[in-house]
Amino acid sequence: MTTTANELQTKGDAARRAARELARTSTDVKNRALEGIADSLLDRADEIIAANAIDVEGGNDAGLSPAVIDRLTLNHERLATIAADTRAIAALPDPVGEMLEMKLLPNGLRVGRRRVPLGVIAAIYEARPNVTVDIAALCLKSGNATILRGGKETINSNKVIASVLREAIAAAGGPGEAVQLIENTDRSLIGELLAMKDTIDLVVPRGGAELIKFVVENATMPVLTGGIGVCHTYVDRAADLEKAVAIVLNAKTRKVSICNALDTVIVHADVAATFLPEMARAFAEKEVEMRGDERALAILQEAGATQAVAAGPEDFDTEFLSLTAAIRVVDTLDEALEHIYEHGTGHSDAIVTEDYSAAMRFLDEVDTAVCYVNASTQFTDGAQFGMGAEIIDSTQKTIARGPVGLREITTYKWIVFGSGQIRP
Amino acid sequence: MTTTANELQTKGDAARRAARELARTSTDVKNRALEGIADSLLDRADEIIAANAIDVEGGNDAGLSPAVIDRLTLNHERLATIAADTRAIAALPDPVGEMLEMKLLPNGLRVGRRRVPLGVIAAIYEARPNVTVDIAALCLKSGNATILRGGKETINSNKVIASVLREAIAAAGGPGEAVQLIENTDRSLIGELLAMKDTIDLVVPRGGAELIKFVVENATMPVLTGGIGVCHTYVDRAADLEKAVAIVLNAKTRKVSICNALDTVIVHADVAATFLPEMARAFAEKEVEMRGDERALAILQEAGATQAVAAGPEDFDTEFLSLTAAIRVVDTLDEALEHIYEHGTGHSDAIVTEDYSAAMRFLDEVDTAVCYVNASTQFTDGAQFGMGAEIIDSTQKTIARGPVGLREITTYKWIVFGSGQIRP
Repeated sequence: MTTTANELQTKGDAARRAARELARTSTDVKNRALEGIADSLLDRADEIIAANAIDVEGGNDAGLSPAVIDRLTLNHERLATIAADTRAIAALPDPVGEMLEMKLLPNGLRVGRRRVPLGVIAAIYEARPNVTVDIAALCLKSGNATILRGGKETINSNKVIASVLREAIAAAGGPGEAVQLIENTDRSLIGELLAMKDTIDLVVPRGGAELIKFVVENATMPVLTGGIGVCHTYVDRAADLEKAVAIVLNAKTRKVSICNALDTVIVHADVAATFLPEMARAFAEKEVEMRGDERALAILQEAGATQAVAAGPEDFDTEFLSLTAAIRVVDTLDEALEHIYEHGTGHSDAIVTEDYSAAMRFLDEVDTAVCYVNASTQFTDGAQFGMGAEIIDSTQKTIARGPVGLREITTYKWIVFGSGQIRP
Repeated sequence: MTTTANELQTKGDAARRAARELARTSTDVKNRALEGIADSLLDRADEIIAANAIDVEGGNDAGLSPAVIDRLTLNHERLATIAADTRAIAALPDPVGEMLEMKLLPNGLRVGRRRVPLGVIAAIYEARPNVTVDIAALCLKSGNATILRGGKETINSNKVIASVLREAIAAAGGPGEAVQLIENTDRSLIGELLAMKDTIDLVVPRGGAELIKFVVENATMPVLTGGIGVCHTYVDRAADLEKAVAIVLNAKTRKVSICNALDTVIVHADVAATFLPEMARAFAEKEVEMRGDERALAILQEAGATQAVAAGPEDFDTEFLSLTAAIRVVDTLDEALEHIYEHGTGHSDAIVTEDYSAAMRFLDEVDTAVCYVNASTQFTDGAQFGMGAEIIDSTQKTIARGPVGLREITTYKWIVFGSGQIRP
């Protein structure tokens, strides 16, 4: 066994033992640990910022882009936000212990399902030190131990933050070993981590498409992925066009870099000539570039829209994450549904319509994590949906779909109260 | 692309299209299809049995064991049982469409989760033609299309059964393409099937440990596994020993070849000298061989039990599937919990006790799919738990845990009813 594999297995074993203890740690202790983490992030802010400064300097030396440098930079204000988010997690209800059902069988057995933690969750992420706290805090509250493998660009920050996390948990009377940071950030270690199916119950990749693909293809344990979406809003022939403009504008421009931002507008031909010029005026104010199919482009150009160009073959399959939208005109609701089936990624899709049957068909037939009628797709978010916090927006169908909160990173066990029953 | 890959992708694409239609096929049509399958299994019994005879002959020529030949053999009586099981699935409630929750958010959005099918489920299994009907019927009822890859030993039976399934679904007005049988049983195809993550939403291996391991390590889509268990029954110092003997005897001997059968008896030292001789007498009548640790063996030999031998190093990690039980004596409940943590597979474990605190600790601390107090582990079964039928007993923590019924092979989508909401 190599040295690196030793670090992985040693920390994995420690996480498993801690998970066993954490599964029966009381909500009070977990909440005190979370408050302690928040306190300590502020008390030790100077130490964390000093370690972070080394990462920032290293990043600059390595020629990282200003956007990446910005994401990995910590300061007092950002630490205060992270601390506040941690306290918010302490304030959420504990999902562990909830009885999902309990029934009395004819033979007198009482059979029920009790919500319990998954066990050990590994997170593989990139240069965002806030994710270290975020994932560990959500896992702690839900009774899961974590193995954290952050990017090498933030290893100095992560080491200090991990010590904050571990010490605060231990100080509250919980198992400090429930948080394990992989300090060797050699990329080859990820493959070894993904083989540890007897140690890790779930792996969560948070990063770019390439990382996610690698994890999905190589993990031997269940994977929770998401955060990537080609999102549609279909403006039906029976749409209230004023609502439609507001919804499309919000879905595209409120925030452009998030996965539930609009990518493609599909418009029914009956309203395209009225709707598209109005949308183009609203988009023009926000400097949104439009990439239209032939019919959309003709209408937009006729209306004098200057930000419209012809859509290329890739545009209807692109998550833009920028002030760009693809536009398509269709003749029927069926054609819109077919377009979403062919090009969608199952993240968030919306219809704008006042037609009851069209709305119901859309909800029935679109196979997407979050299906909207007459609302902006930007609402797809754990906090917006009343779940308090989220780990990821899942685009897979198993484990959890859509916003993943505390409840979604638990499992259940069956408990059976008998009085001597044997099976005939 | 090879010819075999073509068969896979063509059938995969057909399954995906059919899944889309099946997701919105009414319960009435699905139930008529299931009744039609049952009718047709009986109407075409001679044809099925003739095809099966070719498989039986081939199996005999290939030197398959009598047990395997027996499992792959179909006759009128067995077909009647399969037909009756199919009608029983028709009689179960349809899980699709159930609203899991629906809440009104402060901004007026109504957000809920609706249960929907997963999509396409692939099953990889061995020489049991009944599994072909069983899996297809459960998937059909829950709105999922299936890709079936049965063992080469039963390919002739499976071809006829698949045509029965497809024709009955089509005759009921459903998508006959929802059932796809992979006819090329070359083993290398399994690897190609496991790479089709964009086509298959879930893969279920049903077979031996080697098949399951291969699927878990190579699948790029979620896997649902189970059916393997090292199951414990712990007889506490406060056990009612009469109940304990009955429970242990039932857990070990009612059926020995099933995954929830008892493998290891753990006994508290305070009651071992009384309990073990009584258990040995009960076991003797059923010819159960006991493999004891040093203390258990001393007690058993002192009591004159002739079927007791010393346990070897592997015995406490063995799923016996035979009339064999490992026996261990412990001094404390903690030691019993530790043994189950070290040696258990998380399938089904039981405590026998009249001590309230011991029972509660066992339920809290044993991390097993089904945890029992004072009952036989042989109850772990979808039908016993009131779920109607089961696909597998899952020993994993995600997707589903314990008995997997219709509900457990569905997912949900979020549906959001808005009235023009945009996110601030």
